[in-house]
Amino acid sequence: MVGLLSEDEIEALLRRSRIGRIGYCLEDRPYVVPVNYAYDGSAVFVFSGPGRKIDAMRAQPRVCFEVEDIDESSGAMAWRSVIADGAYEELTDDAERRAALTLLGKICPESRMCVPVIPAGMVVFRLDLTAKTGRFGRE
Amino acid sequence: MVGLLSEDEIEALLRRSRIGRIGYCLEDRPYVVPVNYAYDGSAVFVFSGPGRKIDAMRAQPRVCFEVEDIDESSGAMAWRSVIADGAYEELTDDAERRAALTLLGKICPESRMCVPVIPAGMVVFRLDLTAKTGRFGRE
Repeated sequence: MVGLLSEDEIEALLRRSRIGRIGYCLEDRPYVVPVNYAYDGSAVFVFSGPGRKIDAMRAQPRVCFEVEDIDESSGAMAWRSVIADGAYEELTDDAERRAALTLLGKICPESRMCVPVIPAGMVVFRLDLTAKTGRFGRE
Repeated sequence: MVGLLSEDEIEALLRRSRIGRIGYCLEDRPYVVPVNYAYDGSAVFVFSGPGRKIDAMRAQPRVCFEVEDIDESSGAMAWRSVIADGAYEELTDDAERRAALTLLGKICPESRMCVPVIPAGMVVFRLDLTAKTGRFGRE
């Protein structure tokens, strides 16, 4: 049994998950990496150290983003998943980087009590999600 | 905090998970799809209806396979993940197809009491895993 999620169900799953996976291609080879993310209703925000994933997305910004929710509480396995196309955009503006890390719960909003310090070399990026598809099923 | 999983920990995670994700490339675009799988210590077995994923892997058998385990019970989020290269091989031999579906728990072993019937058009394939890497961390 497999069905399609509604637009509202897709948005709800993207908002409530914290871990998703980025798929990218590098020299015709596929890679899948799990990431901690936050979603603001149109884009996914992620931070990362530098490395192969970042190099690959800088070279080829078209990626795939996937999240799932699996519920085994009923004995059967009920699952729902969302797959979206994503466009990589690196955030270089300090205010945008701080806003993304705040959304991710990694830094507090700047205040008299708290000055966020973002480590040098930290990459913060957004994936603008398009063409979202959601499916659900039960095994 | 991020560390590397030992070989034993990698094998244990592959054996105990039931859902993984296949990453593949099609015309330089990445796709990630969740799949129900079984692992026999060297390869992952999956069944699927026909479709884009199967067409893509037939054309380009080099894929990526990823599994994760996320534990939020302690308040913090402890995660471990395995990423492997996989080589797609479609199972066409009836005995091999039956063995894979039995490993997946989808059919019973053939006996006087049970004759498995595999639906026409069902694709059964293995991914031979190489170059496995495991990581763990806590957020």
